[in-house]
Amino acid sequence: MPFDVKQPRNLTMLLDFYELTMSNGYFANGLQDKIAVFDMFFRKIPDGGGFAILAGLEQLIGYISNLEFSSEDIGFLREKGVFDEAFLTYLQNFRFVCDVWAVKEGTPIFPNEPVVVVRGPIIQAQLIETMVLLSINYQSLIATKANRVVRAAQGRSVMEFGSRRAQSYDAAVLGARAAFIGGCDSTACVLADRHFGVPSVGTMAHSWVQIYESEFDAFKSYALLYPANCTLLVDTYNVVKSGIPNAIRVAKEVLEPMGHQLKAVRIDSGDIAYLSKKARKMLDAAGCHGVKITASNSLDEYIITDLLIQGAKVDSFGVGEKMITSKSEPVFGGVYKLVAIREKGEYKPKIKMSETIEKITTPQFKNLYRIFSSETGQAVADYITTANEEPPTDNPLVLFDPNAVWKKKVVTNYTAECLLEPVFEKGRLVYNLPRLEDIQAYCGEQIGRLWDEVKRFEHPHRYYVDLSQRLYDTKQSLLMQNSF
Amino acid sequence: MPFDVKQPRNLTMLLDFYELTMSNGYFANGLQDKIAVFDMFFRKIPDGGGFAILAGLEQLIGYISNLEFSSEDIGFLREKGVFDEAFLTYLQNFRFVCDVWAVKEGTPIFPNEPVVVVRGPIIQAQLIETMVLLSINYQSLIATKANRVVRAAQGRSVMEFGSRRAQSYDAAVLGARAAFIGGCDSTACVLADRHFGVPSVGTMAHSWVQIYESEFDAFKSYALLYPANCTLLVDTYNVVKSGIPNAIRVAKEVLEPMGHQLKAVRIDSGDIAYLSKKARKMLDAAGCHGVKITASNSLDEYIITDLLIQGAKVDSFGVGEKMITSKSEPVFGGVYKLVAIREKGEYKPKIKMSETIEKITTPQFKNLYRIFSSETGQAVADYITTANEEPPTDNPLVLFDPNAVWKKKVVTNYTAECLLEPVFEKGRLVYNLPRLEDIQAYCGEQIGRLWDEVKRFEHPHRYYVDLSQRLYDTKQSLLMQNSF
Repeated sequence: MPFDVKQPRNLTMLLDFYELTMSNGYFANGLQDKIAVFDMFFRKIPDGGGFAILAGLEQLIGYISNLEFSSEDIGFLREKGVFDEAFLTYLQNFRFVCDVWAVKEGTPIFPNEPVVVVRGPIIQAQLIETMVLLSINYQSLIATKANRVVRAAQGRSVMEFGSRRAQSYDAAVLGARAAFIGGCDSTACVLADRHFGVPSVGTMAHSWVQIYESEFDAFKSYALLYPANCTLLVDTYNVVKSGIPNAIRVAKEVLEPMGHQLKAVRIDSGDIAYLSKKARKMLDAAGCHGVKITASNSLDEYIITDLLIQGAKVDSFGVGEKMITSKSEPVFGGVYKLVAIREKGEYKPKIKMSETIEKITTPQFKNLYRIFSSETGQAVADYITTANEEPPTDNPLVLFDPNAVWKKKVVTNYTAECLLEPVFEKGRLVYNLPRLEDIQAYCGEQIGRLWDEVKRFEHPHRYYVDLSQRLYDTKQSLLMQNSF
Repeated sequence: MPFDVKQPRNLTMLLDFYELTMSNGYFANGLQDKIAVFDMFFRKIPDGGGFAILAGLEQLIGYISNLEFSSEDIGFLREKGVFDEAFLTYLQNFRFVCDVWAVKEGTPIFPNEPVVVVRGPIIQAQLIETMVLLSINYQSLIATKANRVVRAAQGRSVMEFGSRRAQSYDAAVLGARAAFIGGCDSTACVLADRHFGVPSVGTMAHSWVQIYESEFDAFKSYALLYPANCTLLVDTYNVVKSGIPNAIRVAKEVLEPMGHQLKAVRIDSGDIAYLSKKARKMLDAAGCHGVKITASNSLDEYIITDLLIQGAKVDSFGVGEKMITSKSEPVFGGVYKLVAIREKGEYKPKIKMSETIEKITTPQFKNLYRIFSSETGQAVADYITTANEEPPTDNPLVLFDPNAVWKKKVVTNYTAECLLEPVFEKGRLVYNLPRLEDIQAYCGEQIGRLWDEVKRFEHPHRYYVDLSQRLYDTKQSLLMQNSF
């Protein structure tokens, strides 16, 4: 079953082998109780967009809630011949005791800010690395992509149709969930409906049309079965010469006498702009003004934008492989990095240097705020502080770009909302899981608070993610200490 | 748990809603026992390659073996208010009775040939559409990609490192399985080892290095723990000025006195070509000739090819996100199409027309042969026949390109191997699942029988997939019947 808090599925062993060799090492060296802080963050917004959307937290919570090594797991690890018995006993009795904070699902997020923070014994915080990333990366990717598609559709309905081309089973089901968070209104995937309540929709495949003696017979038979909700697939033979004429005939000869209206026709191949305009004219000429036109066939935000510019008469879009895989950019590059170690009650910041400048981390146990203008309600910037700083209250607040410190921005009359919510406290779940439709609504509302300039598909305005002075100074000082 | 025949996971409801509306319709119209034949095939080889590799059959078999609608599933469907009670009862008592044939996992496959064939009551054959595609598409994609990466590495070891960037949980585990089939020799994913026996490997993350007072302390500590299998990550601070010198010191001061040799150093950022050459020189100068160099960091077949051209001194590659998502082409476009209906004991061919010529199907219940030259053992062409034709025995055999019939090829002295194996007979599993390492070996052997020209990354030679005269005539006749 797809991962679900209520339906435990034990994925404890879905980790990278190095997490075990390191944990075994921490244990052997008596470091298992050293308190470490890890951040999950990402570096680059997919498709060159202006923001991403966090999703997948519910499944991460489910994973952590069900962490348990079975005796068979332990036996398997023992056979590797590299783990100490004491460590294996620790795993067998594993009980998660870390604190976890995370940004809520549906929140717009930006590069280099902590979106999940884990604090606890290093052995535990290290062990969940793969699943933190795996859970958040994929659904965030798809929610982000789906929202682009939904914005391209300019208010038209977008249905998620990608199950068959998803990258395996969980991707189909959780991808449908993430697409719904991003603003899709339905899915073809029944299991996503069954588990998460994403409304499932669907009518017929070409095989339905092919099995009957004629296209008209196939349409008629379907209309008689589902008169109140009849969408006909009109491209099995020829949209203009056969599909639309037969659909109109069924609307007139079968459905209208029953007191029903044909709901829609669906075009799944050919030139959607040309065919939809032609179909619209033919339907209107026959008086079928209320019949909607649905289009599918390798759509994404770019093609939908183009189709609408070309005047395509499409009322809803079925979007498949290019959304469920985020085909144009199929990787969400979240990373999970050690940022601090607690020593004698103090958090000692840790940095990862790199020849690749973008791979240098921002050290220290941190907090994350979003600054909203009190006048407009719009988000102005994100603001990262060390965890033990007070929330920003300076008025005016001076923000500066950490990569170009001369670029300053002065904010007055603002509110600062903390984005990191407590999820686990000493291993106990303290977070109330929102309903999926509430996550979708929250997502839409939060995106409404971003400037339009940030929402451009190409070359969007770069949203400010700034560091507090104290955090900036901490980073600079570690950079200098570790310079070669 | 990832899908496994031995560990049932019920994914029955992972289907598209239209499969249910159609099945309900077939049932309501008394068509449920009509025997239909569906083909799965694909249209385009990812990355412009010369062949793909089939994988995922074991998981498809697992799915079919565990097909079962629970009472809760039935209750959920009943609430949709569109399904007949008789149909719901049918689902509740569902027993799979179809015949299924498939190409073995690890077999090189080509566009437009049937790789899975399902024959049975249309209601059942239609119902499994999503899972046939979902199971075969993803693993075939990754096996194909991994094989490209492995060929680029020219005999060097390739390790699968992508779990954290996979498109959700199953993709991580089944992607590691598929990558192994394609020729990778190990994975970082412990669950893939636990379930499928893909050897799991891994040493340390940057966090291990960061938590110690110095890089040397971190390396030393690791070497003391794992002296026989010690790979050190050398890029946390600076590869040349710090990582390699510290690794050499550990090799000399810690490992050699224990009678062990440092196994490898791993470089995970920066310019791999430059750094690996520099590292090799430094290691050799210190007498560490046996220490291997492992590289990772956004690698794929293109970058590996380039690195080797530039003389990079890399002994093994860890390949992550670009392989586990097949980033450069993340969709394997398999489709599942009705090709025939049995009527009065005869198979009546069915065609799907399309404005998009490549979307036109090849009708009829079919069989698939691979023609091997008896002289060289190399594969010469694939040959598709109607199912009731005899295997090709003509000598010479005249092959012709179905899209350019004047292009002929005459083959003498050949053997024709049938590629479609019986998997289910009337719903009963009749296929012996091979062991994963045997699939990998078979895959390597079969690729060895392809011409080098077919294996080129860019603009490979197009392998012949030809139709028998009878099948060609069937298709032409349906095309003419359905012309507009």
